[in-house]
Amino acid sequence: MEAETCDWWLEMETEMMRQEDPQEESGSQWESVCGEQWTVQQKGDTGRRTEDGGRRSVDGRSVFSTTSVHCQTQTVSSWPKDVGILALEVYFPSQYVDQTELEKYDGVDAGKYTVGLGQKQMGFCSAHEDINSLCLTVVQRLVERSHLSWDSIGRLEVGTETIIDKSKAVKTVLMQLFEESGNTDVEGIDTTNACYGGTASLFNAADWVESSSWDGRYALVVCGDIAVYATGNARPTGGAGAVAMLVGPNAPLALERGTRGTHMEHVYDFYKPDLASEYPMVDGQLSIQCYFRALDRCYATYRKKIESQWQKGPACRNVKLEETYSSKEVDKAFQKASQELFNQKTQPSLFLSARNGNMYTPSVYGCLASLLAQYSAQQLAGSRIGVFSYGSGLAASMFSLKVSQNADAVNHTPHGSKEDLFPGTWYLEQVDDKNRRKYARKAL
Amino acid sequence: MEAETCDWWLEMETEMMRQEDPQEESGSQWESVCGEQWTVQQKGDTGRRTEDGGRRSVDGRSVFSTTSVHCQTQTVSSWPKDVGILALEVYFPSQYVDQTELEKYDGVDAGKYTVGLGQKQMGFCSAHEDINSLCLTVVQRLVERSHLSWDSIGRLEVGTETIIDKSKAVKTVLMQLFEESGNTDVEGIDTTNACYGGTASLFNAADWVESSSWDGRYALVVCGDIAVYATGNARPTGGAGAVAMLVGPNAPLALERGTRGTHMEHVYDFYKPDLASEYPMVDGQLSIQCYFRALDRCYATYRKKIESQWQKGPACRNVKLEETYSSKEVDKAFQKASQELFNQKTQPSLFLSARNGNMYTPSVYGCLASLLAQYSAQQLAGSRIGVFSYGSGLAASMFSLKVSQNADAVNHTPHGSKEDLFPGTWYLEQVDDKNRRKYARKAL
Repeated sequence: MEAETCDWWLEMETEMMRQEDPQEESGSQWESVCGEQWTVQQKGDTGRRTEDGGRRSVDGRSVFSTTSVHCQTQTVSSWPKDVGILALEVYFPSQYVDQTELEKYDGVDAGKYTVGLGQKQMGFCSAHEDINSLCLTVVQRLVERSHLSWDSIGRLEVGTETIIDKSKAVKTVLMQLFEESGNTDVEGIDTTNACYGGTASLFNAADWVESSSWDGRYALVVCGDIAVYATGNARPTGGAGAVAMLVGPNAPLALERGTRGTHMEHVYDFYKPDLASEYPMVDGQLSIQCYFRALDRCYATYRKKIESQWQKGPACRNVKLEETYSSKEVDKAFQKASQELFNQKTQPSLFLSARNGNMYTPSVYGCLASLLAQYSAQQLAGSRIGVFSYGSGLAASMFSLKVSQNADAVNHTPHGSKEDLFPGTWYLEQVDDKNRRKYARKAL
Repeated sequence: MEAETCDWWLEMETEMMRQEDPQEESGSQWESVCGEQWTVQQKGDTGRRTEDGGRRSVDGRSVFSTTSVHCQTQTVSSWPKDVGILALEVYFPSQYVDQTELEKYDGVDAGKYTVGLGQKQMGFCSAHEDINSLCLTVVQRLVERSHLSWDSIGRLEVGTETIIDKSKAVKTVLMQLFEESGNTDVEGIDTTNACYGGTASLFNAADWVESSSWDGRYALVVCGDIAVYATGNARPTGGAGAVAMLVGPNAPLALERGTRGTHMEHVYDFYKPDLASEYPMVDGQLSIQCYFRALDRCYATYRKKIESQWQKGPACRNVKLEETYSSKEVDKAFQKASQELFNQKTQPSLFLSARNGNMYTPSVYGCLASLLAQYSAQQLAGSRIGVFSYGSGLAASMFSLKVSQNADAVNHTPHGSKEDLFPGTWYLEQVDDKNRRKYARKAL
């Protein structure tokens, strides 16, 4: 893998786990779940999560926000600048199973899930939550925390594979949130192919902003899923959650143009033909092959498209790519050669997945949130984030996000409550796209 | 309804029938099926259809075709001209039930389905066909008849509510068709909200062509469904079929920019919560109300957006719109007042629906095919086609297509076989976008 061009790499659309003996590489920081790299981290807390608990750095944080494109009218037939992600919200269930408890309950060796899979906890939904409620929560939070009005949104699309109605879209359920505003002119419905739906929605939203259909309003991309597996090896790889992203121009996380590489193929590696069941049918070995092949094909297209010079990595010379997918020798050599690169570029993105598990469509965007939560905007400024999104079946894309040089300052509305300010205090209301600061005064 | 601005009107996303006594308005040309206007036409044939039968004018016809955008590279950051539908293919099953036979079988009054609903026949699939096979057929036909290479397609999205797998998209099944070409870089997956999926796919495809993601290749929009209802009043409103559309610039049917009006809302008028069943849950009266409300809201937005002067129609003055939806008095007045307009603008689009039934997502595009099949390109040249697409749940949009002035000639590759030409004969190979004609000679 010659991925020197990106400063960060997110790879995660996990649907089943690699069947390996967890003891074999006990303690390794490189266990794999369907091609995703998981890391062993310090033990987490147990019990019930609170919003203000230790995970506040990820949970519910609108990482970036702006009001600059609000209802602006499009008059020119060209693409707006830096279309991408303006704000991002993550929601996961308050309940979780500690993986050490699950190991005991399942009667497996201690460490099988916590060391072998590198998982600490697995989020799950009670009977009070389903795919609709997860998405309602994450969308309302994003809009409220970004101080948006509901009529400033012109498009909302949902990527999910948690199908509880074969006809009615989750999107239409979310229209309840818009009712009071009277805004019903909101394009986009639901889109589905395994874990890829969120990525398809993101691409569609960005295309919309660049097209003549755009009316100057924001797009919202929502992805959510509840990943539940039958009793057995795959069960500890479940999870649940939702991510909402605000998409528009002048974004601190801009989608790089003309570079994305896609690979689609007809395979039955992971699918859900039993419509009455929550559980998927999974061919684990096949899915790993497919994941690697998709990664190679997407990467080849991505590389071809950017036509840039790459710094050569250590492997894949004089070796047929397909033959390396199941080779333990190649696997170990890669792990060794890329350990430093992995620790530097991928490990920071695994914070949430280790603590909540697999969310299907939101997974890779949970990785993005994890990365953003662990570095300041100044630290990330100007860097490039590589993303590989895989959905079984299969649909996969590789693309990159460019972090703006001044992501922390421009088009920025400060977050958090103003309640603690004394009456009559002036406060920073907004920093506009020219770094001009606007202030308001708290009522006396 | 003040729809004078459009020369043709297509309205059809039927999911259930209006519960009326068919005898009450026997012979009327204005019976409604969920807000769609159906007409009584001459009795059709019975038995098995053949591809070259009486319906050849619609079945399998690639109405327009062009090779002009083939693999062109996009270098400017502006929208290409006239993005829209370049070619259109319709597929429906070879078997059908004659509605007079169904009346007898169901033991209802003669005329209930044929006169009351205006339906002649209803297509159905045998066990050899499912949603995947319907879409495979219609896509292969479009590509072959348009003389396209599989690698000239850069996007393919499927709109359907016939869900036979909760994770794997129909789109990935269609990738089998691309295998030999080696083209796997094809964006787009499946999209779902009742009958609206095809329209969402069309919008997404057009946005893609106008965005920086476009690589100069064609987009394919596919919609297909098998509409099956439980025994009872709704059963004769079923049907099955698929439509594929080729989308790109310089289209003879261009999507008019900046005019589309959308209305989305959370309602349970038609939905499929029983995942193990093919049958929907339907609240007929509610769905009619929703359809009309969506029509009014979309129309208001459409009208506002085009900001043009409208010739005033006969009704809706001093009347609350919502109150008119269930008023027989208003209904009859509208029928009378708009009869001529309806016969002129909408009736031609109902050819296929009367003979095949409700196709869900492809329905409104079957109306488009019906219209195109009954007029020459010269007759349609320069006209504007209004489209209202409704999917329960609900998602609805109104938009318009502009027929190019010279749709029959420019960017045109003649269809059909050249086998009958004598060896050594020169033949028309292409008419380019400046009406220049290019010829080739058949081998001796």
